[in-house]
Amino acid sequence: MAVNLNPPRAEDVLPVSGIELGFAEAGLRKANRRDLMLMRIAPGARAAGIFTRNSFAAAPVQVCRRHLGLGQNIRALVVNAGNANCGTGQRGIDAALHSCDAVARLIGCEPSAVLPFSTGVILEHLPVERLEAALPSCLKSLDANHWVEAASAIMTTDTVAKAVSRRVTIADESITITGIAKGVGMLSPNMATMLAFIATDAAVEETLLAQMVKEVADVSFNRVTIDGDTSTNDSFILISTARARLPEIRASTGEVYAVLRAAIIEVAQQLAQAIARDGEGATKFITVSVNGARTSEEAVAVAKSIADSPLVKTALFASDPNLGRLLMAIGNAQVEKLDTATVDLFLGPTQVIEAGERADSYEEAAAALVMRESEVVIRVELNRGQVSTTVWTCDFSYDYVKINAEYRT
Amino acid sequence: MAVNLNPPRAEDVLPVSGIELGFAEAGLRKANRRDLMLMRIAPGARAAGIFTRNSFAAAPVQVCRRHLGLGQNIRALVVNAGNANCGTGQRGIDAALHSCDAVARLIGCEPSAVLPFSTGVILEHLPVERLEAALPSCLKSLDANHWVEAASAIMTTDTVAKAVSRRVTIADESITITGIAKGVGMLSPNMATMLAFIATDAAVEETLLAQMVKEVADVSFNRVTIDGDTSTNDSFILISTARARLPEIRASTGEVYAVLRAAIIEVAQQLAQAIARDGEGATKFITVSVNGARTSEEAVAVAKSIADSPLVKTALFASDPNLGRLLMAIGNAQVEKLDTATVDLFLGPTQVIEAGERADSYEEAAAALVMRESEVVIRVELNRGQVSTTVWTCDFSYDYVKINAEYRT
Repeated sequence: MAVNLNPPRAEDVLPVSGIELGFAEAGLRKANRRDLMLMRIAPGARAAGIFTRNSFAAAPVQVCRRHLGLGQNIRALVVNAGNANCGTGQRGIDAALHSCDAVARLIGCEPSAVLPFSTGVILEHLPVERLEAALPSCLKSLDANHWVEAASAIMTTDTVAKAVSRRVTIADESITITGIAKGVGMLSPNMATMLAFIATDAAVEETLLAQMVKEVADVSFNRVTIDGDTSTNDSFILISTARARLPEIRASTGEVYAVLRAAIIEVAQQLAQAIARDGEGATKFITVSVNGARTSEEAVAVAKSIADSPLVKTALFASDPNLGRLLMAIGNAQVEKLDTATVDLFLGPTQVIEAGERADSYEEAAAALVMRESEVVIRVELNRGQVSTTVWTCDFSYDYVKINAEYRT
Repeated sequence: MAVNLNPPRAEDVLPVSGIELGFAEAGLRKANRRDLMLMRIAPGARAAGIFTRNSFAAAPVQVCRRHLGLGQNIRALVVNAGNANCGTGQRGIDAALHSCDAVARLIGCEPSAVLPFSTGVILEHLPVERLEAALPSCLKSLDANHWVEAASAIMTTDTVAKAVSRRVTIADESITITGIAKGVGMLSPNMATMLAFIATDAAVEETLLAQMVKEVADVSFNRVTIDGDTSTNDSFILISTARARLPEIRASTGEVYAVLRAAIIEVAQQLAQAIARDGEGATKFITVSVNGARTSEEAVAVAKSIADSPLVKTALFASDPNLGRLLMAIGNAQVEKLDTATVDLFLGPTQVIEAGERADSYEEAAAALVMRESEVVIRVELNRGQVSTTVWTCDFSYDYVKINAEYRT
């Protein structure tokens, strides 16, 4: 049950020139569900990516890093759900490479021009022959308008497909940005059990694209957390198909870069928020804002300490203004020399903590009203610096336990 | 429902010369339950303590630190459940000092010879007049044999009182050690929502006692985690009543110190394990051992990453050998330059991961058998150094969510 998140309407998700998407039922884990997605990218495109920081990076992540490092044009992404191909050793690497070979043969490119992605159960070998057998169906269904179908084919415990588009005009040229993503558990800042693919027809110079993917992730996918666990398979890929008439963007200083970057961030943030809205068992969408920090690190530490606390999240689920748990979570962020006497905290419009203690004006009834809503904003004012951040998360319900206790059944 | 944890039998919990305990129903949060405990300590005793690292240390923690810092003999502890007296500003400090004054008047000592402790809901003012009104009942019930009753009076969501004793012979003298503790949520290494009080009749020199309290905590209470949240009120106090005939222990080098320290660690570890066995909603007791680490920090980081992972804990609850989550948790410990190819992992006797990948010999049926037990041992071999650690925790069930969603109702 996603929180205020509707399935994308096909007409709202815009094709990006140079991108076609196909899908199939490969039967990798369960029968009769889409679990394989192929994105074909026209020649001349560039791609940049960032990946999980988990030490056990999955086989496809290792292959992606290798293929992107070769600096050639990327011609396809192949993405499977149901099996993470992680903890599978050399056999897992071979399986990922094999899927690249198979795609390369079908679309006619170098195997190293293909990027593989997997999401699902860890520590089980990928049935790559089933994946290969389903690729012709993917090829047959390739279509520039299949973004929503592609988004549904990469889902695991997601309940709603996630696809977002923006169109902006830059120097009189219309530029399109479309992205898809999947969540939804094992999700923490510094990437989630999360795959996200965003494409634009604007041409962006290679090193600039690599810079942009980091900048975008830092204010979007790295600011969403479901349970504080970080997956082995997280990947975010940004593709520039260079099909728009706008000249190639080569500098990060001009307005052209800024406008494109802002539009891509919008798409990425909306996808990131969709992931939190569709968090496992979520009944509420929570925004945690921290202001007045000295550094970005301490702002994120405070926001994440709140957003990851099981005690805070169960209180939000219960709509119980047991708000001392927020104070506990701030105090656990290990901010160096935090003067608690300067800390204020607001739940929606209600001030709960003033100068480090229960606000005189605080009335539990007011907080209870705020907590009953499906969207709750928690705002911390540290009052010790100028840096702000925002993290999105969801509450922690019986269904989180149920979904994760029964994930494989 | 605590895991393989029986209530202490009164005859197993030994009095410590110089210590008497009383209790009362102060009605601080709920009617008709014990929620106040008074420990009277005979003149000549010493106490040392360590406290929460949460920036929002509760008012009683601040007062304890101040009183212990004065270096005088401690004559009493006063402990209430139901209200944490935290986030309560100067009014909270005044309330804690007031409770010390009231105790001091009753037993005839300096107010600064009294240490106050609180556990319960944060951000609500302590009804100190009710506490004061119940103190005469505490005084009336003072008895050297009331350790178990004292343990029950400090419980919050604990389901079983926690009290442990040991008797050791040192240099032909019999030495007694008895401790009590309470858990059970908001519990993480570096102290838990946890109060623990251990007393011995052995005489230990003051600075040595302060050293010992840290050494003991480091291998007991700092190695138990329920949910990764660290409370604002954690306190562990070690009391030396100096009533035994054994001469004062003044050096940490001799065998006398070593034997006493080992016995106190036994008591503390058993109390720490009892806290994990009685974790909120626990259905399983989990031991996470990490061997072959380069430093204690990285060993603890790996053990804690496993023990705190909601995904690992829900899989344990479900008895589902979805063991890729263990690999994920190891990888998230951010061990510097971890070579995953040297990592082995065992679930009970079953090898799951060998050299960083699924062991060839691994069969899920064997793991499923191990997971069905009420006690599960997870062992990680990092194979990169000589340092080991052990952390105790419990699984993560529907009841954790239920207990914490409904904590205040």
